[in-house]
Amino acid sequence: MPVSMSDGLLKLLNEPVYAQVATLMPDGSPQITQVWIGTDGQHVLVNTAEGRQKTRNVRRDPRVAVNVVDPANAWRLAMIRGRVVDITTDGADDLIDQLAHKYLGVDSYPFRNPAETRVTLKIAPEHISEIGLEQTVG
Amino acid sequence: MPVSMSDGLLKLLNEPVYAQVATLMPDGSPQITQVWIGTDGQHVLVNTAEGRQKTRNVRRDPRVAVNVVDPANAWRLAMIRGRVVDITTDGADDLIDQLAHKYLGVDSYPFRNPAETRVTLKIAPEHISEIGLEQTVG
Repeated sequence: MPVSMSDGLLKLLNEPVYAQVATLMPDGSPQITQVWIGTDGQHVLVNTAEGRQKTRNVRRDPRVAVNVVDPANAWRLAMIRGRVVDITTDGADDLIDQLAHKYLGVDSYPFRNPAETRVTLKIAPEHISEIGLEQTVG
Repeated sequence: MPVSMSDGLLKLLNEPVYAQVATLMPDGSPQITQVWIGTDGQHVLVNTAEGRQKTRNVRRDPRVAVNVVDPANAWRLAMIRGRVVDITTDGADDLIDQLAHKYLGVDSYPFRNPAETRVTLKIAPEHISEIGLEQTVG
């Protein structure tokens, strides 16, 4: 069952954090890749391309785990287990530009390859462990 | 089949890098945790405690993936797939002190809990992807 994300985690996901996604290879072994990451408030968003190993992996088995950490503070992080609930090209080109802005401070993704199709993986968190994420007190 | 690690990767593993280990839960889904990391030159070494989720996971299925990244440079990293070939208490207390020295600059691990048994997971790399690791030229 999906769980909701805390304000502290949403804040972290909106920063240029380091993130790693674990997926499952065809033989069931884990694979890990470092990625840019964002959120729509409900899902963890990863932007990748069709044909990449992790895209092929999540089409076969949608179960993933994600680590998100502040590069300036190793003790400010979240470890998430969840499921890819959508793989879509819809808005994927816009999202990679938004992530390039967040991570590189540029308006447009500089590594765009016309031969590749960008896709967004929407991950619904099902289990979240947080360390050092301050909660917003209203 | 195990593969050997480059000089650039060994150098990275000896720095106080961020590292994440993916293991497999009982249902085969991936789990990810952030860890301190080291190397004996042949294996990637993770120090943890008996009873922890990742320890239980690798006793059941030794297949793991590891991401290692320079906190000062997101583009200097390695992504490793491999297998836990040994789980040992032998030298595990010394290793956690060495890692505390590397990561915290202290002589002795400050979070030691007499109720827990430290163990070292020795990971044999089987597939390595490197980004931005300069090779040593002799």
